[in-house]
Amino acid sequence: MQYGFEILKKDSATGARLGRIYTPHGEVNTPVFMPVATQGTVKSLVPETVRELGAEMILSNTYHLYLRPGHDIINHAGGLHKFMNWDAPILTDSGGFQIFSLSSLRKITNDGVIFQSHIDGSRHLITPEVSVEIQEALRSDIVMCLDECTPYPASLEEAEKSLEMTVNWARRCKIAKKDNGQALFGIIQGGIYPALRQKAMEEICLKIGFDGYALGGLSVGEPKDIMLEIVETSAPNLPEDKPRYVMGVGTPEDIVACVDCGVDMFDCVIPTRCARNGLLFTNQEKVVIKNARYKNDHSPVDSTCDCYTCRNYSRAYLRHLFMAGEILAMVLNTIHNVRYYMHLMERIRTAIRDGCYAAFKKAYIERQHLS
Amino acid sequence: MQYGFEILKKDSATGARLGRIYTPHGEVNTPVFMPVATQGTVKSLVPETVRELGAEMILSNTYHLYLRPGHDIINHAGGLHKFMNWDAPILTDSGGFQIFSLSSLRKITNDGVIFQSHIDGSRHLITPEVSVEIQEALRSDIVMCLDECTPYPASLEEAEKSLEMTVNWARRCKIAKKDNGQALFGIIQGGIYPALRQKAMEEICLKIGFDGYALGGLSVGEPKDIMLEIVETSAPNLPEDKPRYVMGVGTPEDIVACVDCGVDMFDCVIPTRCARNGLLFTNQEKVVIKNARYKNDHSPVDSTCDCYTCRNYSRAYLRHLFMAGEILAMVLNTIHNVRYYMHLMERIRTAIRDGCYAAFKKAYIERQHLS
Repeated sequence: MQYGFEILKKDSATGARLGRIYTPHGEVNTPVFMPVATQGTVKSLVPETVRELGAEMILSNTYHLYLRPGHDIINHAGGLHKFMNWDAPILTDSGGFQIFSLSSLRKITNDGVIFQSHIDGSRHLITPEVSVEIQEALRSDIVMCLDECTPYPASLEEAEKSLEMTVNWARRCKIAKKDNGQALFGIIQGGIYPALRQKAMEEICLKIGFDGYALGGLSVGEPKDIMLEIVETSAPNLPEDKPRYVMGVGTPEDIVACVDCGVDMFDCVIPTRCARNGLLFTNQEKVVIKNARYKNDHSPVDSTCDCYTCRNYSRAYLRHLFMAGEILAMVLNTIHNVRYYMHLMERIRTAIRDGCYAAFKKAYIERQHLS
Repeated sequence: MQYGFEILKKDSATGARLGRIYTPHGEVNTPVFMPVATQGTVKSLVPETVRELGAEMILSNTYHLYLRPGHDIINHAGGLHKFMNWDAPILTDSGGFQIFSLSSLRKITNDGVIFQSHIDGSRHLITPEVSVEIQEALRSDIVMCLDECTPYPASLEEAEKSLEMTVNWARRCKIAKKDNGQALFGIIQGGIYPALRQKAMEEICLKIGFDGYALGGLSVGEPKDIMLEIVETSAPNLPEDKPRYVMGVGTPEDIVACVDCGVDMFDCVIPTRCARNGLLFTNQEKVVIKNARYKNDHSPVDSTCDCYTCRNYSRAYLRHLFMAGEILAMVLNTIHNVRYYMHLMERIRTAIRDGCYAAFKKAYIERQHLS
């Protein structure tokens, strides 16, 4: 199947869109949330489970896989899909965000970025061309352009300079990218400055042009209302006919709010990381499973949830596993949280299909504030 | 179903027996290997997976579950089967072995044993009656008598004194045990002294009498040939019509050798613990998965193995997961090793059924020595 994107329905009262992305590894219904498989595994789960929970696309991290085991090994395996036994779509990021958040001693030049591995301290140079080459070796369905993630806070001058680099790199990524069926997405930076975001869109979307567009540099420490304001003002101005992706977002409430602005794609470590830390999402309240009140509580985490964990285990058992440091605690908690997110996305898509997204959003946000 | 045991076939050339144990939670084909679910979970696996791998009975540890989460909580859940979502047979040990191997400051009196928790240092008294009461609360299918695990080395006098205690406690366990459908097994101690082992069998099997018999105090540091010698001389003298169980054994070779002596039941942490440490059993060689030679090895761990891991993942991927510290490494490795053990037991039972156990044993031991 060739890469493509189709809008199935636009909500009349909000900016929400129901759509479908086509990729060489199958279709993806949007709005979509991609569980994160940083090192080629959605932590603690076998891929069949991830699929059964409702995930249609996952995200893997180029930075991590480049450093370990190395993209040459994954290429030799036949690509990341075969290596990790996941035959549905995969999006790979460019490595940029992790270089800026995980590695040390980074030095940015016009050519690219030199950094030290967070694993063994070895030095590496990643250029836009190298990032594309790695992602081509990984054989993901969607490739992201190397960008510089503008930090928060950054002055207007800093953000402008950073944006220039990102635009320059995006152009080089587009040139470097082989015509091999992988889609290539551009990334909009510009920090918290509306004028820069606007300029970024002109450069990235109009002058260069990609198969989809991400808003980058969000959820990097800025206040939540600023993040939502940028999405509100930027997302609707992204090209109508391409997928819109907000990288690294977010909480269930963030996702519900961003869909309202016309965002189609999300990824975030929140459901999986929180699960490993014993924080479970439910439609009633957040369950901190180590809490002593669950010691003798033989009801499921969420009696309205259809996941394997809620169908078969009690809060008392999950608390026991967590307190005992058992690996199964991570497995069962991750199953629940990923299912919560996947079910949320199903509810979002149903609400858009039924033409009642505004009401859904209002009810969802209100319930979250109550609990 | 009421507890019972049936011998289906006795091997003519060896002591090996093919049998079946009946329990309230179903049948168990013997010789059986019980994966260990120390804290109410076979580490890293959901119970459905353990079952699919071929496990018919598991072992859980009374000591651990008594300390955390507490048998009252598990009783409140409806018993261990419901608590951990495992509806096949469960055997619980008495807690004795762990008190002697894990806890500190233990003091043995005629009444029982006082020890300090390895978790929080709290003090506890376990008597034969308390051990039975805990296992009744856990509602396991097979309950073990509290025994004193005679250490190695121990003088004849020490071993004799220890055995006296074990016999006395066994009598008290039998008196304390309610007639509730759970089977109660006695444990034969006596250290490395044949005369004491013989005496133990007279006391435990003939004078008191239980639903099955275990050889205890093995695999506690004694040389392997001494261990096998004790099994060889003791196991055939255990009552013919009851299951014979060698606790805490062992390696695949040990199991194959003990079956030859007429042993029906085994448990050991070797397959699960080795898996978590990256040591994988195969019919060719033991695979130390972190070894650099597997870095770019895209073949399965064992091409003759039918397990989920071998059907779907390469050595290169398993090595990557292990080196990256991923939880999935433990999951996939455990699946493989448990399957190796379960498949070994299937091969053992088939060999007995086909009347060729001696030849099977010879070939198996020879191949292990070659690899």
